[in-house]
Amino acid sequence: MGKNFEKKIRIGIIGFGTVGCGTAKILLENRENILKKTGLDLELVKVADLDITTPREIELPAGMLTDNTNEIIEDDSIDLGIELIGGTTAAKTIIEKLLKKGKGVVTANKALLAKHGIELFRLARENETFISYEASCAGGIPIVLALRSGLAANNIEGIYGILNGTCNFILTSMAVENKDFPVALKEAQEKGYAEADPTLDINGGDSGHKIAILASIAFGYEISFDDVRVSGIENISIQDINYGLEMGYVLKLLAVAQRDAGDGISLRVMPAFISKTDQLAGVSGPFNAVSVFGDAVGQTMYYGRGAGMMPTASAIIADVIEAGLGNAKRSFEAMKLRSREEFLEHRADPDEIESRFYIRLLALDKPGVFSKLSEVLGKNGISISGALQHEGRGPNNTVPVIITTHLTKLSAINKSIEQIQSLSVIEGCPTCIQIAELPEDTD
Amino acid sequence: MGKNFEKKIRIGIIGFGTVGCGTAKILLENRENILKKTGLDLELVKVADLDITTPREIELPAGMLTDNTNEIIEDDSIDLGIELIGGTTAAKTIIEKLLKKGKGVVTANKALLAKHGIELFRLARENETFISYEASCAGGIPIVLALRSGLAANNIEGIYGILNGTCNFILTSMAVENKDFPVALKEAQEKGYAEADPTLDINGGDSGHKIAILASIAFGYEISFDDVRVSGIENISIQDINYGLEMGYVLKLLAVAQRDAGDGISLRVMPAFISKTDQLAGVSGPFNAVSVFGDAVGQTMYYGRGAGMMPTASAIIADVIEAGLGNAKRSFEAMKLRSREEFLEHRADPDEIESRFYIRLLALDKPGVFSKLSEVLGKNGISISGALQHEGRGPNNTVPVIITTHLTKLSAINKSIEQIQSLSVIEGCPTCIQIAELPEDTD
Repeated sequence: MGKNFEKKIRIGIIGFGTVGCGTAKILLENRENILKKTGLDLELVKVADLDITTPREIELPAGMLTDNTNEIIEDDSIDLGIELIGGTTAAKTIIEKLLKKGKGVVTANKALLAKHGIELFRLARENETFISYEASCAGGIPIVLALRSGLAANNIEGIYGILNGTCNFILTSMAVENKDFPVALKEAQEKGYAEADPTLDINGGDSGHKIAILASIAFGYEISFDDVRVSGIENISIQDINYGLEMGYVLKLLAVAQRDAGDGISLRVMPAFISKTDQLAGVSGPFNAVSVFGDAVGQTMYYGRGAGMMPTASAIIADVIEAGLGNAKRSFEAMKLRSREEFLEHRADPDEIESRFYIRLLALDKPGVFSKLSEVLGKNGISISGALQHEGRGPNNTVPVIITTHLTKLSAINKSIEQIQSLSVIEGCPTCIQIAELPEDTD
Repeated sequence: MGKNFEKKIRIGIIGFGTVGCGTAKILLENRENILKKTGLDLELVKVADLDITTPREIELPAGMLTDNTNEIIEDDSIDLGIELIGGTTAAKTIIEKLLKKGKGVVTANKALLAKHGIELFRLARENETFISYEASCAGGIPIVLALRSGLAANNIEGIYGILNGTCNFILTSMAVENKDFPVALKEAQEKGYAEADPTLDINGGDSGHKIAILASIAFGYEISFDDVRVSGIENISIQDINYGLEMGYVLKLLAVAQRDAGDGISLRVMPAFISKTDQLAGVSGPFNAVSVFGDAVGQTMYYGRGAGMMPTASAIIADVIEAGLGNAKRSFEAMKLRSREEFLEHRADPDEIESRFYIRLLALDKPGVFSKLSEVLGKNGISISGALQHEGRGPNNTVPVIITTHLTKLSAINKSIEQIQSLSVIEGCPTCIQIAELPEDTD
């Protein structure tokens, strides 16, 4: 290839929903511009979708839209298939067929990659082609590229991400506008940040898919969604958000992939308090952000929109351009993932990682409550870091008491909570939320 | 190249200072690990430096260190030269020689690229090789990669960067610890954040180099340091930082490359107030950050260490790996920069971009001062956005008065200040600082 090479890439899009529209829009409207900037001619040839009648935001040239996926799969002149139908069944079959035809695949399908990425990656390698998936994690933020290439010199020590815009929007509304969870969720749905069925967002599953994918790149192992311990924000109460704020913490749904001192790797998604002063604390509304700690680079952080038509399309086109340059194939080949068996030797239990905790309980307003709490915690080796009890009392002579702990393990906390619940001075079930101690990169 | 390709890259480092040490360290200590992760065998062959006697942090294998640069340039078995001597004279000659030998070049030399990048890039193209320069901007943050590849689908609208850790450290010390400029500078020198001669950092030159390089990638033109309007932080007073904080602003040395509605591109570096709520406002101490606005992706932001031995080495090794994969050459070829002549047609005067301003003046405590100020500003078409005058008075019956303006042009501000200075109720010369209005990516 000489200096002035121009290469034509013929592209098929499978799935003409929101992101498919955005992707087609950039390919059609920006073709000339991308050619000028990169020397690559990105030619959109076909768009396949079962629904070919509903009007979309963009009108395709006549004959481009088809309801027959095979028109893309079987067309040997098409170099690259962009899979945007989502889900883990039909999408999987389509990607398999594309790979077997030797085509490159670009996808935004986090659920599929987190669950079946290992076998799809193997299939791609067998067929000497590649899968690119920048758009699967954190939308428009080029975090896959950063981990795979920009930070390649580093041993990654930890990834801490706000990876679900729906949850972050809800938690921000709750914190800033003092809304209850159901109200904030409804608003998110009205604004288009939450699906009609928001389960996979709010239960942490979506964040779990993404952290599995990012961890796989960062640590270089075959990692799956099954390796991630997941809990969501369904039961978060506005009270806890407010008490947290008062104590200097912001509540986020945090996805964490962490390497411990013994080379164990733990993966989890959970609602967690982070210090107001942390870079991630300022990430509000539907935005995403990822903090990455590398042994050479220290902390780097990446921020932007984690979803939406054009941000996601931006990531897809970035992959298409890298594919057109031939870089995608080389980078995919060069991403040597150690086997699942090897990973399982290193997989660590996230509950065994030491953390700090926030505990809210309802105590009777009687003398000696703190002494009893402190005694239970002390017996379990937990020391109190902070406490908060407002003056005045609630119904049945009770008062909410907040305790934050120093570093301890979840097993010790669970045991303590069981014992605390059986104290006569405590009403109901205490609430417990992790306080994430993000590493600090200071001098 | 098949599936299990392993490629050996033979590397020479020219310049064995801090960053050279860090780079050699990663290459020597991490060779096995990088081979496992990427299939690339990065072999450090030679390190050249005039000083081969001073002990360094890392000990090189016998025979690796030489004071003769030609041992790298003339060795046809060396694929890649890493230039780390800095400066714009000897470094330029060395890079030219490396390119003429057809070697790939990796460099962290921002001054050289900002001043002579255009001709060096042309020379690289003529010799069908490439220059990689991730480490030249914002140290360990993979911002070159993000702009060139991750955001390639976007028309970039603006880049807003905190690109000099020395200045940011000084401004943070002044704001947080209420230190005067000379004290903060001295501390930065003691901590190793500022050079013995800090001129190029504090006068904004270093930030200017970096924004010229980033703008060139983002907008796709041959852009040079000469295109950047630069002012530094030498004359910033603690008073203004404190008044700004009171009004909701943080003072930063901001590097801006901005596209206006008429496709004009302006480049500038200046101390500027930014809103406390902006993502960049939380960037403290020696850290760097870059906010990038793209038409598809909206706002993305990148944060990390902008300097230092290992962060910079991290960026250099990332380039080396991309070079080894063959991606660096393809990406360099694909980066089609429109000519300098074309750029000059689009180069816009940064002073003609509308901005808000902060003006501090010393007024006599007499009736009617505000009315006179407001009259002068009004005549120049400037309306007042905010004002602050503390009760009590200083020497000679004067009081400091702060005025912030709505959007206006620097020319109108300069005219007003001239007229304000001639008012009998004003003492001395007013201080004027831009208030940067960063775009907001909201729904």
